[in-house]
Amino acid sequence: MTQQIGFVGVGRMGANMARRLKDCGFSVVAVYDNRAESTAELAGELGAIHTRTLAEVTAAADIIFTVVTDDAAQLSIFGESGDSLLKNAKGKVFVNCATLTPSIHLELERRAHDAEAYSLEACMASSITQAREGTLYLMCAGDKKVFEKIKPVLDKLATAPRFVGAAGQAAQVKALVNMLMNINTAGLAEALGLGHSLGLDLTMLREIFSQTGAASRVLQTDGEDMQNREHDCFFSAAHAAKDSTIAWKLGVEAGLSLPLSAAARLQYERMVALGLGDLDKSGVSELTFKDRIW
Amino acid sequence: MTQQIGFVGVGRMGANMARRLKDCGFSVVAVYDNRAESTAELAGELGAIHTRTLAEVTAAADIIFTVVTDDAAQLSIFGESGDSLLKNAKGKVFVNCATLTPSIHLELERRAHDAEAYSLEACMASSITQAREGTLYLMCAGDKKVFEKIKPVLDKLATAPRFVGAAGQAAQVKALVNMLMNINTAGLAEALGLGHSLGLDLTMLREIFSQTGAASRVLQTDGEDMQNREHDCFFSAAHAAKDSTIAWKLGVEAGLSLPLSAAARLQYERMVALGLGDLDKSGVSELTFKDRIW
Repeated sequence: MTQQIGFVGVGRMGANMARRLKDCGFSVVAVYDNRAESTAELAGELGAIHTRTLAEVTAAADIIFTVVTDDAAQLSIFGESGDSLLKNAKGKVFVNCATLTPSIHLELERRAHDAEAYSLEACMASSITQAREGTLYLMCAGDKKVFEKIKPVLDKLATAPRFVGAAGQAAQVKALVNMLMNINTAGLAEALGLGHSLGLDLTMLREIFSQTGAASRVLQTDGEDMQNREHDCFFSAAHAAKDSTIAWKLGVEAGLSLPLSAAARLQYERMVALGLGDLDKSGVSELTFKDRIW
Repeated sequence: MTQQIGFVGVGRMGANMARRLKDCGFSVVAVYDNRAESTAELAGELGAIHTRTLAEVTAAADIIFTVVTDDAAQLSIFGESGDSLLKNAKGKVFVNCATLTPSIHLELERRAHDAEAYSLEACMASSITQAREGTLYLMCAGDKKVFEKIKPVLDKLATAPRFVGAAGQAAQVKALVNMLMNINTAGLAEALGLGHSLGLDLTMLREIFSQTGAASRVLQTDGEDMQNREHDCFFSAAHAAKDSTIAWKLGVEAGLSLPLSAAARLQYERMVALGLGDLDKSGVSELTFKDRIW
């Protein structure tokens, strides 16, 4: 446990992962984020440096977790000139936790390699609570030796971190997970919306679904919320649209016709276009219930 | 248990339901089916009359189960002239187990009422084995008093027979169950097909799906079969197309836009058009894997 750990991007996910690692006895030595005030506060809490530059994080830490929002943010912190995590990065390990377009991970791996550093993809399929409790669902990809090397750290963040393959493949798996989740969710919203129009008791209908071939995880997590129009955000429609689009593009590139994937993507893009992108993904039921249709 | 029971339609489902009721101590007194040879055999096994007319079943029994294939067959045995179950049917209870267009059940109820008989919808969401073991998933609709009256018999056929509402509503619920099941199945085939094109390990991918928001009942029942191209028929693509079409039409009549339902319907109709209608519903993966595409 002599490794020094840094964090770039300490929003709710990153901050809770850092807290968790500190609780487990690791040294979290440096944090960096554009949000100065909350980052300074977190640094105080963790006994870490609140660095003003990316290069300072690399200088202070051996393993650097990056938890940023998107492709552009991820590429910008790994810049090949100016302030960058890759400055004097020889031997450092970067663990990149954002959900990115799969090919971005290949680019990150290339840039890290040029700097004699290591890049590992660590794709998360869980949320804030799991980050704090160290029970993330974590899919890793890249160089398996790097995965094995830092597994003691990953083990404290995730229930059972798994290695899925070459760089970019964890992002592919996550895109597929979310594509299928979004299809099941959009389909559930149609079945409940139609049941509502037919005058069926939706509580009964959900119970019957749960006992038959119509059962699914999203029935458990989103069914009642759809019935009650409770769309507080756990996973936003805008995120669903983004992830379904990543998967849909992978399908196009593979020359496949994926009509349900396409239909689910368009439902979530329709939500975004209607200004409903901040609703939870369960809000897709706003498009399928007669008395709600936007 | 003094009630006399008759069966019209003793294919694999009907025959096993009849056997089960006899095992439970009921008197199965009459069976009718166009397939003369196997029906005579079953009659011998059950100690029942093999009737040559529908009217004889009604004459011999108090409760008559009908287990026929489709709307046309169901209407034909309830004819308003000629040989018919409705001849001298006063006080008799008809339990109609076929999957029908919901409005047909209203017509059956009207015709039974005119004959001073009772009609109950009993929609099944299970298969042969469950019929034999008395563990059907049975959704009933119509007059609740009729349901209560014959519940002791239904209890021997089904794990927990449930009453869902007015005539036709059980068929509506079943159409929704199958519509959603078909969406989840067609979506799963897309996710596995795309995973295959990306070179991912599909056994790993299915395991990850099972641990995330992508989990579903059809992942358990159909996922491995899709991977291995094992499409022996439990529930045919042709049936999936038929049920998805019933649900899609209900949606159209309700003025709803249901894009995933429409896409799933077309995938199953595509299978039928390609001559793949006899494959199991899992065969929809034949349309989404690059090296299989028809």
